Amino acid sequence: MPLHAPRRAALRAMLVDQGLDALLVTDLLNVRYLTGFTGSNAALLVAADGEKRTVFCTDGRYQTQSRSQVPDLERVIDRPCDLALAARAGKDGHRAVGFESQHVTVDGLDGLAGVVDGLVRASGLVERLRLVKDDAEVDALRMACAAADRALVDLIEHGGLRVGRTEREVARELENRMLDHGADGPSFESIVAAGANSAIPHHRPTDAVLKAGDLVKLDFGALVGGYHSDMTRTLVLGQAADWQRDLYDLVARSQAAGRAALRPGVDVRAVDAASRQVIVDAGYGPQFLHGLGHGVGLQIHEAPALSKSGEGTLSAGMAVTVEPGVYLSGEGGVRIEDTLVVRENAPELLTLTTKELVVV
Amino acid sequence: MPLHAPRRAALRAMLVDQGLDALLVTDLLNVRYLTGFTGSNAALLVAADGEKRTVFCTDGRYQTQSRSQVPDLERVIDRPCDLALAARAGKDGHRAVGFESQHVTVDGLDGLAGVVDGLVRASGLVERLRLVKDDAEVDALRMACAAADRALVDLIEHGGLRVGRTEREVARELENRMLDHGADGPSFESIVAAGANSAIPHHRPTDAVLKAGDLVKLDFGALVGGYHSDMTRTLVLGQAADWQRDLYDLVARSQAAGRAALRPGVDVRAVDAASRQVIVDAGYGPQFLHGLGHGVGLQIHEAPALSKSGEGTLSAGMAVTVEPGVYLSGEGGVRIEDTLVVRENAPELLTLTTKELVVV
Repeated sequence: MPLHAPRRAALRAMLVDQGLDALLVTDLLNVRYLTGFTGSNAALLVAADGEKRTVFCTDGRYQTQSRSQVPDLERVIDRPCDLALAARAGKDGHRAVGFESQHVTVDGLDGLAGVVDGLVRASGLVERLRLVKDDAEVDALRMACAAADRALVDLIEHGGLRVGRTEREVARELENRMLDHGADGPSFESIVAAGANSAIPHHRPTDAVLKAGDLVKLDFGALVGGYHSDMTRTLVLGQAADWQRDLYDLVARSQAAGRAALRPGVDVRAVDAASRQVIVDAGYGPQFLHGLGHGVGLQIHEAPALSKSGEGTLSAGMAVTVEPGVYLSGEGGVRIEDTLVVRENAPELLTLTTKELVVV
Repeated sequence: MPLHAPRRAALRAMLVDQGLDALLVTDLLNVRYLTGFTGSNAALLVAADGEKRTVFCTDGRYQTQSRSQVPDLERVIDRPCDLALAARAGKDGHRAVGFESQHVTVDGLDGLAGVVDGLVRASGLVERLRLVKDDAEVDALRMACAAADRALVDLIEHGGLRVGRTEREVARELENRMLDHGADGPSFESIVAAGANSAIPHHRPTDAVLKAGDLVKLDFGALVGGYHSDMTRTLVLGQAADWQRDLYDLVARSQAAGRAALRPGVDVRAVDAASRQVIVDAGYGPQFLHGLGHGVGLQIHEAPALSKSGEGTLSAGMAVTVEPGVYLSGEGGVRIEDTLVVRENAPELLTLTTKELVVV
């Protein structure tokens, strides 16, 4: 409750700005952000004039859960929730009722328009709030990053990364170790890519066996309280060849340049460019196949995008990844990724595992 | 390929029926169903006049993967895929271009309308095909159900269900054992609910400890090749009390009645009613808090809904769950759930674990 009421208050200021009497929030993550509700079906009608006419809706399965998670708002048990609250908006006399036009489908809008007048497109309002993380959110991200850090350390110290194991076995051990350290689950399907597979940016773990001399790329994260961590480390098994050391060093310098560029007020494209230039200068521009990074929070990928086509500038409190990579098809690839929070001075690093080349 | 081309052919017959020159498929599961592509970003333009002008789109990360998974269609690497293919539809001279209005958002439609004329709402066409599973889909469901069955047997035989363990520990062992039996992952967040928690229909596993005499409700499933199994068994730890046996017997009879009602041509509401009546007759109608079941396939919950508010009739080849439950608040609850395929005569049972009361 101390978390969510201020978020709703911040949203209300936006509604007033936009001339909206209320906002019908139907995206489940936005409902969670504004109320703390974690069930699989809910909606929220946020009245611009205060908490009194702000109404939460879920279905009968979540009667008990919603009572404990959303004790501070009027609760309605009904389904479908979007229609129930749209009708309620009409009954409450709201005349300009915003809806989340980036989430509501074309068919869904038909349904809403059938029960309430005065619907107004209102895109991305809650997402704009979610861009800058509050302390509780950073705490959750910090715990998620710590669970991933510890899992990787455990994996290495217990000999989990060794010749003869399959990518799939390594991924499974890594995920189990994140659970050991308090994760609710992995934050996405873990990537474990060995040898030539490490040159595939989004490789799914297979039964391919780890061999001596392989680059092994691990891209994984933990989910804690709904928040996603995201990190990549690339290691070498046995002994590192010179080309592997050179490639690693290049990506590490690019990644450091990207982190150094993370400051409030900086254009997201400039962050991508700062990191990318290091790789371009070394002649590997075409082998850096993706954007530099992305926001993380209640989603594993959210705004802002740190890429050539990204939009906007950074603000203090944004949580982002910085993850350059160079992929040499058929040989191997290196990616190094941290999750960080933009701060007034230097960014706060949440993924603390070393970025020196680890040879196991 | 032998799987997906016939599905596209079936869709083309629907397009011709609807007077559409093409359908822009943007829902990722529908794209997967029609092509076999398993990446996280793609779209498909299905031309009514044949495979030649049917075009698949994904982004650069999936160049290699799409080449192997979708070898039989023209492939475009671009992003965003929906806009790229909408523009292509215009270039190819399609005049009536269907879009999936139950998936495309209000903002998304704006984007499409900016690049192509002649957009026509076309809701649920691929979903209608997906209602009836083909042999490959039933095979995947059968493997997913088998992985869950085996995991539960292993769990019980290895003493995994015992006094002193937490719900969370049991859930984790169950999920790991499904992986041992070939699951790609759990098909949803497993429910392990002991004692009074078993009376909460959708309980999340906690650190609550299993005690002698507890009802333990396990609702879980495996994911295999994108297909979801779903089963619930409720067991008793130690010794079963009379009220637990009576409650179990009631739910088992209700579940059997629901299964017996699964026949082609039967109204989905009649299936719910057949099962529900057994519980209502025993005086526990209000304690059966949810619908009887749902379709399963590429989604854990899909059409048809077997419930009071469900619509339509059953056809041979539909895969559904039958899962009545009675929940006695503060005491405990019993739910018994199978995944089955509707067949001409008796339904085919895919979840084979016994439904007799197991006391461990």
